Amino acid sequence: MTKTLAGNAVIGQSGGPTAVINQSLVGCIEGLRGCDAVGKILGAHHAVRGIVNNDFIDLTDIPQDRLDRIANTPSSGLGSSRDKPDQAYCKKIFDRFAENDVRYFFYIGGNDSSDTARIVNEMARQDGYELRAFHIPKTIDNDLECNDHTPGFPSAARFVAQAFMGDQLDNAALPGIKLDIIMGRHAGFLTAASMMARTRDGDGPHLIYVPEVAFDLDKFTADVDRVYAKHGRCIVAISEGIHDSSGESITAKLAENVETDAHGNVQLSGTGALGDYLVALVKERLGEKLRVRADTFGYLQRSFAGCLSEVDQREARASARVAADLAVQGVENGSIAIQRVSDSPYEVKYERVELSDVAGKTRTLPLEYIVDDCDIDPSFRTYLAPLIGELPTIEQF
Amino acid sequence: MTKTLAGNAVIGQSGGPTAVINQSLVGCIEGLRGCDAVGKILGAHHAVRGIVNNDFIDLTDIPQDRLDRIANTPSSGLGSSRDKPDQAYCKKIFDRFAENDVRYFFYIGGNDSSDTARIVNEMARQDGYELRAFHIPKTIDNDLECNDHTPGFPSAARFVAQAFMGDQLDNAALPGIKLDIIMGRHAGFLTAASMMARTRDGDGPHLIYVPEVAFDLDKFTADVDRVYAKHGRCIVAISEGIHDSSGESITAKLAENVETDAHGNVQLSGTGALGDYLVALVKERLGEKLRVRADTFGYLQRSFAGCLSEVDQREARASARVAADLAVQGVENGSIAIQRVSDSPYEVKYERVELSDVAGKTRTLPLEYIVDDCDIDPSFRTYLAPLIGELPTIEQF
Repeated sequence: MTKTLAGNAVIGQSGGPTAVINQSLVGCIEGLRGCDAVGKILGAHHAVRGIVNNDFIDLTDIPQDRLDRIANTPSSGLGSSRDKPDQAYCKKIFDRFAENDVRYFFYIGGNDSSDTARIVNEMARQDGYELRAFHIPKTIDNDLECNDHTPGFPSAARFVAQAFMGDQLDNAALPGIKLDIIMGRHAGFLTAASMMARTRDGDGPHLIYVPEVAFDLDKFTADVDRVYAKHGRCIVAISEGIHDSSGESITAKLAENVETDAHGNVQLSGTGALGDYLVALVKERLGEKLRVRADTFGYLQRSFAGCLSEVDQREARASARVAADLAVQGVENGSIAIQRVSDSPYEVKYERVELSDVAGKTRTLPLEYIVDDCDIDPSFRTYLAPLIGELPTIEQF
Repeated sequence: MTKTLAGNAVIGQSGGPTAVINQSLVGCIEGLRGCDAVGKILGAHHAVRGIVNNDFIDLTDIPQDRLDRIANTPSSGLGSSRDKPDQAYCKKIFDRFAENDVRYFFYIGGNDSSDTARIVNEMARQDGYELRAFHIPKTIDNDLECNDHTPGFPSAARFVAQAFMGDQLDNAALPGIKLDIIMGRHAGFLTAASMMARTRDGDGPHLIYVPEVAFDLDKFTADVDRVYAKHGRCIVAISEGIHDSSGESITAKLAENVETDAHGNVQLSGTGALGDYLVALVKERLGEKLRVRADTFGYLQRSFAGCLSEVDQREARASARVAADLAVQGVENGSIAIQRVSDSPYEVKYERVELSDVAGKTRTLPLEYIVDDCDIDPSFRTYLAPLIGELPTIEQF
């Protein structure tokens, strides 16, 4: 049996926070604490920035009851960052690791975070520095390859479902046209989750638009017109990432001064511009007197305190624990993927996959779930229901 | 002892839905069911519109388990309306009552609903037609006179508190300037509820703007600048109803085509315009490179399924029950007000007040809670905490 690699550990939380990313942090800490060879367990304050600035939070000796409270707190407790490390940045990360005798690196995040772990691992190897580098998945967009779903998504999907359950009843009480804008740049999973709000025929959302197919303004207003004529009301779920047939984002077309992040992504969240534009369009084409409203769910989808999927909490902690266990057992690197064994009873397994299989790739909603470019097939419920857990009971007249 | 007035009953739900307005509906039904003199219990489909159109839902014989499920369902189960009945409209309502032998009228809503009950009651009296007319309070704005608070507000306040708990952690994880727009046309109670998200020094919201005081754009950007310099981040709660020193709504100033409802109110909700305008202003004045975002919480505040205050559920049902009981006992009219007996242990009483004491009047946030025109005093917590119940536990590094 090989001797366990001795040294310190660094854990970071990257990208957009989620409701369960602290579960992943705590699962990782719990996995490392049992191993004598692991010295200090350090939290990188604001992700890779904390590493290059030697800004760490000591996580080694936090009592279990405090760890449990941290795990149940939404958002990234260590702080996050939108920095996308290039080679030079990764070199700085690696240098800090070498200076601090860091031998275990766990990076909780999306596909960019997987790439960071991959690059740093590669540098260590080239330098002959033994390092364990693991990516622990997190993204409300649910867009990582190799995964049935990713921690963070089930809780965000639960928020979207509960929001639509209430909002579709609100729309029934005061009939009109209601447009709700949901997060999701390239993947429509979160927007599709709105379909869980339907409890009987005629319930909304009546239309669902995801970024996997092109968004056509003429078809959109015709769809709304048709639904409104039939039901006397219409509630619509629209992904912030919708784009035209050329691939250009509808939001980007609207913005006078498009703001982009370090990844070159156009800012989609934190603005009501898309919803307001579509409201104006519907009124212009279908009638200025119509009651048309838009809500942009925004950051509440990923951070709302007290709207959690229990499955998500458990899996976020468990997948991080698997990463820690594998690292301590001597596995050099990897990303931990959640794969579904069965729908009913719901069962998953945690598999190690290559960092490069996740890095820089985007999974999207399978096209078989998309109906007529404006709805989601009922079969999506089989996929999603076990993830989000039991929803509030609705009784209508 | 007088003989109980024999006849049918009509219950209506008016204005914006809330998370507990169906509790009020069910409380009223439960109060009436025990009385043999009450014949049919009819629900007015879409409020006063249902009455004038003879469009009723029969509520007389609904089994208790279904009633309980209805009570726990958010939004107005009977449907609502934004119609504001004038004298002619009220005459039609009264005529329908006389045709259908309706002797009990319960109208669940805000101060306009109280006025409708008052006018119809007045007409009945002038006609020598014996009618019981009661107003049952409901409003997330918490702006009814004579009331310590109103059903619907505690659950909406709980939503705002939970949203800010998460969003202020999100803002801490990815520091920047975050503006959150909260419902409330004239009263700042709901916006003030954001202060419940603070669990320790430095927590947001760092600034809170309510419509009780004039909103000054220069002071606002200076406030944000000061907080951002101190904390490296800034999260702000802003009421949709903010207005300048002349009383003009900031949203109304922005809108090219202002939409108004039957009450002459400018549309404030269902648009991201105010948030987006303030984001642009902050960037223009404090720096285009700053990360500035806005979320408009919108209709989720009043309808989100599964974010309820237990006190609110209980009180909504109880206050409606009191209205039904008084009507059956022979009291001609009134509105039921919740008045606080003590903060700790929390205790309230339900008092009958005159319809005219509530009708057409607006209560606002007491000025002693407002600090420097940009914050809420900690004493507001004493008022609000017992209403919203225990919040999720937060643990930060």
